[in-house]
Amino acid sequence: MGKLKLFEADAATTGKFESKDEALDESKKLQEQLYDLLYLMFAHDKHSMLVILQGIDTSGKDGVVRHLFASANPQGIRVFSFKKPSAEELRHDIFWRCHKHTPESGLAAIFNRSYYEEVTTVMVHPELLKLQRIPEMSSDLKGLFKSRYEHINAFEKMLSQRGTVVLKFFLHISKVEQKERLKARLKDRKRNWKFSEADVVERKYWDKYMDSYEKMLKFTHTKHAPWHIVPANTKWYRDYLISKITVEALAKLKMSFPKSNHQMKSIR
Amino acid sequence: MGKLKLFEADAATTGKFESKDEALDESKKLQEQLYDLLYLMFAHDKHSMLVILQGIDTSGKDGVVRHLFASANPQGIRVFSFKKPSAEELRHDIFWRCHKHTPESGLAAIFNRSYYEEVTTVMVHPELLKLQRIPEMSSDLKGLFKSRYEHINAFEKMLSQRGTVVLKFFLHISKVEQKERLKARLKDRKRNWKFSEADVVERKYWDKYMDSYEKMLKFTHTKHAPWHIVPANTKWYRDYLISKITVEALAKLKMSFPKSNHQMKSIR
Repeated sequence: MGKLKLFEADAATTGKFESKDEALDESKKLQEQLYDLLYLMFAHDKHSMLVILQGIDTSGKDGVVRHLFASANPQGIRVFSFKKPSAEELRHDIFWRCHKHTPESGLAAIFNRSYYEEVTTVMVHPELLKLQRIPEMSSDLKGLFKSRYEHINAFEKMLSQRGTVVLKFFLHISKVEQKERLKARLKDRKRNWKFSEADVVERKYWDKYMDSYEKMLKFTHTKHAPWHIVPANTKWYRDYLISKITVEALAKLKMSFPKSNHQMKSIR
Repeated sequence: MGKLKLFEADAATTGKFESKDEALDESKKLQEQLYDLLYLMFAHDKHSMLVILQGIDTSGKDGVVRHLFASANPQGIRVFSFKKPSAEELRHDIFWRCHKHTPESGLAAIFNRSYYEEVTTVMVHPELLKLQRIPEMSSDLKGLFKSRYEHINAFEKMLSQRGTVVLKFFLHISKVEQKERLKARLKDRKRNWKFSEADVVERKYWDKYMDSYEKMLKFTHTKHAPWHIVPANTKWYRDYLISKITVEALAKLKMSFPKSNHQMKSIR
């Protein structure tokens, strides 16, 4: 990947669609296909799927979780949200709290935020590194993040070679769109609780966040675990795209239903 | 590292020592140093220590655990034995069950066996791979183990760069010594329970185990996590060597007691 710039305009596209209804029709079909593919993955029992959602505050990570698995069987899918790390988590490596929740064969997991916070939020706020009690390299920030990218790539390669499909979505909204969404949270009583003063403070760091995202996308976009940059100003387009990419990724696997050990005929 | 051969003779050496008592004197001093260093590590609170013990049945892994931390504060050290993986563990990658037990900063952990079983026992008995539900590569065994070595090296580099001292000990006994130890288990009522018919069956695979150990030692001996091959026919020499290497590794770290925030004088 060459030099990457996250432009405002990219965030607003709705691709081939002219209206929401068109997209919803296709999305509905994709949802059904996804349901079938997850069922097949469960039966085939050799692959698993890990969906990683990253994006700035209000970019729609929770919305994707709701949408993407609206029609999935909750038995086969688990969602994990990685918020501010606990004291115990800070005392371990950056994968520790996430690794234990990677999906077992047959199942799917969604990470709402992940170890990618360690190369984005932590890059914007390097003072957070002090909490992590890292002995060396904290004076060499560039080196530290470079090795974190490498560790991430190695970790995802390992998961991928074990049979996990790693799907990484970066939800890309524009700065103007974020402003609208923060305002909406203030207005709507049902969404008030999601508004945090911290979001407004973080907004000041917009450019620094974009810079960290660009670096993340560049250095951790790999064959085993590519990034998908999702224009996310328009929610229905965002959801359509994610369904589509997910369905395509699962369909590519060579999965089949196992043969039964029983003589079905004789049982009938 | 060039081609490596685990010779029978190597296992019996007692190095510079002519008598057991000489070694015990030095071992005692090392134990005290180890106690102090682990206390310092706890106070300094930036490093952790992971000791990995590998070796064939009866090579003395349990004995090392007893000896090495006989004098340590049990609050700062935890031992994990990785036996036959559970059904849930088999459904994850090879690090999953171990990673959750890696030590947090300030603390030490001992792994009695580890993910290295996945490139030794599993190499000797590739039929075990079927239980692991790996989608591809099971037809390409060489490729599979090659990527496992790479994953191991990446995992340990990650731990090491986060501040964990990774100490890997391979306990090397001779085939004759193993026979004696198995016999002893049969004779001694207190050790009867440790005798398993499986051990005798496994003994038939001696050469295959040696081959897998040689490969493991060659391909996972890295700057961040070197292997220490410990001649282990003689228990007191084995214990001395492990104490010595452990003390030296911890002493090399730049650790110091943190300054107190309090005015000690005024409190006095």
